[in-house]
Amino acid sequence: MRSFTVKASTEYEVLMGSGLLSEAGSLIKKVLPKAETLAVITDDKVGALYGGEDQALMKSFSDAGYALRKYTFPNGEASKKMDTVCGMLEFLASGEKALTRSDAIVALGGGVTGDMAGLAAALYMRGINFVQIPTSLLAAVDSSVGGKTGVDLTAGKNLAGAFWQPSLVIFDTDTAGTLEKDQIMDGLAEAVKSGIIADPSLFTYIRDNSEKLKEYMDDTEIRGEDFHQLIETVAFLSADVKRIIVEKDEKESGERQPLNLGHTFGHAIEKLSGYGTSHGLAVAKGTALIAEASAAAGMIPAASAEEIISALAGLGYDLSCPYRAEDLAEAALSDKKRRGSEITLVIPEKVGRCSLRRIQTAGLKDLIRSALEA
Amino acid sequence: MRSFTVKASTEYEVLMGSGLLSEAGSLIKKVLPKAETLAVITDDKVGALYGGEDQALMKSFSDAGYALRKYTFPNGEASKKMDTVCGMLEFLASGEKALTRSDAIVALGGGVTGDMAGLAAALYMRGINFVQIPTSLLAAVDSSVGGKTGVDLTAGKNLAGAFWQPSLVIFDTDTAGTLEKDQIMDGLAEAVKSGIIADPSLFTYIRDNSEKLKEYMDDTEIRGEDFHQLIETVAFLSADVKRIIVEKDEKESGERQPLNLGHTFGHAIEKLSGYGTSHGLAVAKGTALIAEASAAAGMIPAASAEEIISALAGLGYDLSCPYRAEDLAEAALSDKKRRGSEITLVIPEKVGRCSLRRIQTAGLKDLIRSALEA
Repeated sequence: MRSFTVKASTEYEVLMGSGLLSEAGSLIKKVLPKAETLAVITDDKVGALYGGEDQALMKSFSDAGYALRKYTFPNGEASKKMDTVCGMLEFLASGEKALTRSDAIVALGGGVTGDMAGLAAALYMRGINFVQIPTSLLAAVDSSVGGKTGVDLTAGKNLAGAFWQPSLVIFDTDTAGTLEKDQIMDGLAEAVKSGIIADPSLFTYIRDNSEKLKEYMDDTEIRGEDFHQLIETVAFLSADVKRIIVEKDEKESGERQPLNLGHTFGHAIEKLSGYGTSHGLAVAKGTALIAEASAAAGMIPAASAEEIISALAGLGYDLSCPYRAEDLAEAALSDKKRRGSEITLVIPEKVGRCSLRRIQTAGLKDLIRSALEA
Repeated sequence: MRSFTVKASTEYEVLMGSGLLSEAGSLIKKVLPKAETLAVITDDKVGALYGGEDQALMKSFSDAGYALRKYTFPNGEASKKMDTVCGMLEFLASGEKALTRSDAIVALGGGVTGDMAGLAAALYMRGINFVQIPTSLLAAVDSSVGGKTGVDLTAGKNLAGAFWQPSLVIFDTDTAGTLEKDQIMDGLAEAVKSGIIADPSLFTYIRDNSEKLKEYMDDTEIRGEDFHQLIETVAFLSADVKRIIVEKDEKESGERQPLNLGHTFGHAIEKLSGYGTSHGLAVAKGTALIAEASAAAGMIPAASAEEIISALAGLGYDLSCPYRAEDLAEAALSDKKRRGSEITLVIPEKVGRCSLRRIQTAGLKDLIRSALEA
């Protein structure tokens, strides 16, 4: 097991390793000794895998002396809305076992679950404790650390939410054993991004293990100890990059922006695909696009862009971008982060270092076009 | 105009005086120079009084250079639910004039409006600025300061919400001119409570002006400069008591509890009345009840209880309590603040000083009975 401590407005540990589901109860007990009831929030898919009362996780909670409640919602991004969070809040407040201020929520699942259960924790009685138990690689490397919670509105993704830090994050790397190829690809895209932002050793580690990772992704049968070690290393180093940046800028006033590398164009690609392109693949495409565009505009050396693009291609990402420059620019500018006549882009100077550049929104289309034509 | 600064996690000014609605735009501009659009959130009743585009408040916003949007919901506690806040969030995110992170919300109205508009501000894009413009005495003396936002759930009042401080609070005392008697009574109950907690001069001021206040409450026609001065003094001193306590304990971990004087029994009375008894009247009844009970149990001198009860009676509050001790105890114990086998009560030692006492929940019924029989 590996661990690190996030020193945000509250301090909490991130634990990663094999077999942690069966230790979760005692690990939570150390951090939240006063809680009497745990409300486990999960979706139907993950709940069926790990949420049974006779399974390791729930048994570990009971063994630690916790009373248990469980709330299940339908798997998928379509559930990520305020209505679902309202359902959670009504559930938490209802009945004989209504949660008190000292009780806690457990978010069991991927990013959608963590984002919504975290928001329910932020809102219930104006804030109670919650624990993140990510079961997707994307949630483990990215969303479970940092305290960003939220839901989508009709007008766009993640437009409502709160900053609310978990009390503990537990990633059992064994859960990666059942992940589908697309789910691992989604997580790896953010991991590569984290490497580019701040950790060349993470970037190199993923690149050097590309072939192995692809084999594991294609065949769940061959995933064993070696695979778990790989996933643990990738998740641990990625989450640690997130820790460093979140500690500098918890509320995203500026320094947290490097985490958006690849996301301005990534969000645009997601939007133009009608959200048919997954977030991770869109981030991979968006990262390649901003690298290409930065090189074409002479902002970074061509070799930097090539290194990034070949690593992503080596993992099997389809980096093609079938949209027109004007459509991409328009979609990017409709994003919530735009302000006035300028837009801030995260530029990958080289692997391990990014910079922020404000450019005129009017020039965005040409910047994208130069990349698409490169 | 009088003002003070609240030094919470963010600092903000509270301004009170006559004619401030027409200065609101320029006052906000000083605090929020980067905002381009203001979204005014109000209910239909208050909106009809002050929310017209050709009226002083909205004109002051336009004159200050702000683009304006307005969202109106139906007046009353029945609106205080997550659905209404979701409607606000969808509104804020929609259309050409969708709010950006640097824009702000203006909460124009009473406590229900401030609580919900504040929650919308806390959630929209994970938090934008908002300004409180209370138009009820209860909101001016109590809810507009301190950053508690929230909505009711099916299981109880204020069970979901967030701590989110406003950027500015503006109370135009002229708005008190149209308040109904019950609305002023609601506000005065919290003001008397604030006096008992921490400011004997406020308590004495209200008591010494009881006859005048009653005359003003009964007749809107005679409310002039003298009435506005009275209201300004009461609101200012009350809000300042709240400031002192909020600065010590913003997130209500303990020291903020004195603000709950009269509220444990007050909430029970509200509940037993099916919410037919207003919050303010219930707090007055609850304050009298805890004073009587504390004296009957020998926890405070009989003279302390008498002073409190006679001041409340002098303002015209009907302090009768037509409920049985066991029903009151049960209703009080179903409140969200109960934890385990003990309950914390705020005891009015004497005017100007309260203490917290933890008593066994099993003894609560007898404590209440001794007061009802006194």
